[in-house]
Amino acid sequence: MFSNPTILELNEKFRPVWALASSGSLLDWDLEVNMPEAASTSRGVTMSQLTLLRQKHFSELYPLLEKAERITDLNDYENGLVRVLQRSRKYFTKIPPSLLEEEQRTSVEATVVWRQARSKSDFKLFKPYFEKVVALKIQIAEKLGFEKHPYNALLDLGEEGITVDDLDLTFSRLIPGLKKILRKVMAESRFPPNHPLEDVKYDVESMDRVNRKVIELLEMPKDRFRMDVSTHPFTSNTSRDDVRITTRYEGVDFRNTMYSTIHESGHAIYELQIDEAMDYTQLANGASMGFHESQSRFWENIIGRSREFAILIRPALKENLSFVSPYDEEELYKYFNLVRPGLIRVDADELTYNFHIALRYELEKKLIGGKLAVSELPSIWNDMMDEYFGIRPKNDAEGVLQDIHWTASFGYFPSYSLGNVISGMIWNKMRKDLNLAELTLKGEFGPIKEWLYDKIHHWGSTYAPKDLSRRSLGEGYNPDYLLEYLEQKFSG
Amino acid sequence: MFSNPTILELNEKFRPVWALASSGSLLDWDLEVNMPEAASTSRGVTMSQLTLLRQKHFSELYPLLEKAERITDLNDYENGLVRVLQRSRKYFTKIPPSLLEEEQRTSVEATVVWRQARSKSDFKLFKPYFEKVVALKIQIAEKLGFEKHPYNALLDLGEEGITVDDLDLTFSRLIPGLKKILRKVMAESRFPPNHPLEDVKYDVESMDRVNRKVIELLEMPKDRFRMDVSTHPFTSNTSRDDVRITTRYEGVDFRNTMYSTIHESGHAIYELQIDEAMDYTQLANGASMGFHESQSRFWENIIGRSREFAILIRPALKENLSFVSPYDEEELYKYFNLVRPGLIRVDADELTYNFHIALRYELEKKLIGGKLAVSELPSIWNDMMDEYFGIRPKNDAEGVLQDIHWTASFGYFPSYSLGNVISGMIWNKMRKDLNLAELTLKGEFGPIKEWLYDKIHHWGSTYAPKDLSRRSLGEGYNPDYLLEYLEQKFSG
Repeated sequence: MFSNPTILELNEKFRPVWALASSGSLLDWDLEVNMPEAASTSRGVTMSQLTLLRQKHFSELYPLLEKAERITDLNDYENGLVRVLQRSRKYFTKIPPSLLEEEQRTSVEATVVWRQARSKSDFKLFKPYFEKVVALKIQIAEKLGFEKHPYNALLDLGEEGITVDDLDLTFSRLIPGLKKILRKVMAESRFPPNHPLEDVKYDVESMDRVNRKVIELLEMPKDRFRMDVSTHPFTSNTSRDDVRITTRYEGVDFRNTMYSTIHESGHAIYELQIDEAMDYTQLANGASMGFHESQSRFWENIIGRSREFAILIRPALKENLSFVSPYDEEELYKYFNLVRPGLIRVDADELTYNFHIALRYELEKKLIGGKLAVSELPSIWNDMMDEYFGIRPKNDAEGVLQDIHWTASFGYFPSYSLGNVISGMIWNKMRKDLNLAELTLKGEFGPIKEWLYDKIHHWGSTYAPKDLSRRSLGEGYNPDYLLEYLEQKFSG
Repeated sequence: MFSNPTILELNEKFRPVWALASSGSLLDWDLEVNMPEAASTSRGVTMSQLTLLRQKHFSELYPLLEKAERITDLNDYENGLVRVLQRSRKYFTKIPPSLLEEEQRTSVEATVVWRQARSKSDFKLFKPYFEKVVALKIQIAEKLGFEKHPYNALLDLGEEGITVDDLDLTFSRLIPGLKKILRKVMAESRFPPNHPLEDVKYDVESMDRVNRKVIELLEMPKDRFRMDVSTHPFTSNTSRDDVRITTRYEGVDFRNTMYSTIHESGHAIYELQIDEAMDYTQLANGASMGFHESQSRFWENIIGRSREFAILIRPALKENLSFVSPYDEEELYKYFNLVRPGLIRVDADELTYNFHIALRYELEKKLIGGKLAVSELPSIWNDMMDEYFGIRPKNDAEGVLQDIHWTASFGYFPSYSLGNVISGMIWNKMRKDLNLAELTLKGEFGPIKEWLYDKIHHWGSTYAPKDLSRRSLGEGYNPDYLLEYLEQKFSG
């Protein structure tokens, strides 16, 4: 994989930077899962100092990186490595240490306040932190530089090369297509909007056993993987051999925690299958946030919400949740696929999910473009929900405070829709090679993992996401396959 | 506390070093509590890289430190800070990066192997790692330099200024005194060697509720403290606002987990009560390992194994462990204070505990002095146990493999006996100011914590341990008070 001596030297010198990132990842995981509340300030200090150290030690690579840039016979992996290092160099040279430090510290404090604000459903508590985060993100966009729209600078950080123009086009094709399918489904009765299981409370310990069964069915490796609980589920890794997911337990409507578990497992499978030879290098990351979300959404929806998965998981549900017993496989399948416009993104069905993202995308674009003040956000949020779905949040917790993202990141949300789009492209390509329904029914996920390893995972971030898409999926991001999949599933 | 401008600048520049230490502390905690097994190699890389970065960034303080050394009007805190920074400078300048890195990496790998070896009771598995650790420690002693005995170099790292001569003298007074009391107690029947509760199995969840009650009684602050489970209990902190203990559940003989919890809480109270103004500085540590163990042993034994604590904790025990009900307070007190020479250090009673330490001290001295080979260790261990107590371990798990310490540290064990000695000195002094029995009976631990704050905790590492002993306890380490306390308790 790596053979050029300059590249080998670069990787060797990169090791302290890798260790700092790995430590930062654990500090972040711990902040969500374990950290005592009073430690938010000191944790902010630790994390911002680590980011500054990362910037500092990264700069020691520049002479070698310049040397590598002049080499003309690098292989694809080596070229990819130079590309991702260049991207980090751009970030670390354009953002001054003081801004980096402030951003890191602010996001830790904001996370703790967001948690309180959400539990009290009080946007006012979070507002000053939100304003600070937005102001910092605008500063960062300006420092990074951009064409056309400052939001492009932030988008590129998570999704190399994506722009407001790209996303406007994607949503302009996706949303009308979804509306069409949604209207049809709502008019029929095959996928009902309600189900009695939605209101049934579950015992957390029993549900935990179901989730442990889910990760067993997905063959998550016990010695390299673990699952914990946090307010907002996420996936984290400190190395390829230490990948962790979290799930959440709300005590009612067990689908939500089960699909969180499957979603995050999808992220984890990606991290676990990156080529071992990339260990401790900057290539050992997913190609982009969009590609990462394509993995989580593929497992959550295309596998997890299939009729065959309902059959596969039913025995474990019956064993641990006695209230499931009266429902047959078809009923469970319907419960897993209720179609109903709702307030909460993470609970949304496959047809309405992207509306939630379109909403956040429009708001982020306006906030970063200076066209919207934070104080106006809750009411505009509620108005847009009304417009899309004809429903209004009763409070901020089920409105603007529902997601953790705005404590730290702007430009992430569109990745979810891109992820859905890419998962549709994967579905289209994979069904030519594999019998997805049969494999899911048998719980044989090995061939599916191998397919994903081969086409996407093992490459890490060797290729820019748009290139990986063309190379492995035959074309650029194309929402048609997602629409075809949804059309087939919901109106078939 | 800090007012000299050079000192203020030193503290400011120390912050990245503090952040690296804080991160290292979390990585270490996580390694014991959460980390998936396959990650030991990558975790070793992360931790050794962080240690190297700490060394590197610490060296950036040297010019300022030299400037501070020339200032003549520093206050006690500032002088203390210069002293502890000088100690770190000595360590980081004498130990080359390659050795630091190897030591760190080896100890992470050794920890994982030790865990397997212990569970399989197979010393052969651990032996090559043990040999590597010993060889590295001898190298470190040589690099640091020493007078008389290489072990002195390692002892000083945890207990500033202590030497083999000091310890030989301490044990030569302590062991005969203990033998005398032990003989007398064994001849009487007031403290029996056995109790039916020893063999009773407990349910881990119920016992966890008891331990949660224990930390509630000790008023451990919820927002700055947490408790988890690990093979070998320990205390860890990433900041003064994030102090963590672990406990262990063996499923039988509930005293062991309860006293682990109290022991580690004693360590935690020390960390939690260091002066806030020392945050992010090198003074924010205990005075020494001996002083740290004095806190854990004080709470575990002098408070926790008192008759009054048996009365205080009995309702919680009866509520959660139904098998406790038939036993009255006096019976519980006896169960908590069975006197019986046994194989396991952490389960030992107050009279036999120091024999375990004396054994380990002699073995460490010989190993580091090159007078004993690792391969001879299991049989010599067993011979010494036979000599002290007339019993032999049946296997390595209850012999040489019982402690985690030798995966990473040599020179730590004597701190436990010094801790016992200091806890006796504290007992002697505190009983003149406070009615310990009455406060314990009422569960009013506030005044005890305040006393410890005032005399010991708030100083952090401002004073060298021998100085703190003279200053706050009136003299150097003196085992007479411990013997007096034990004499009073067991023969009174």
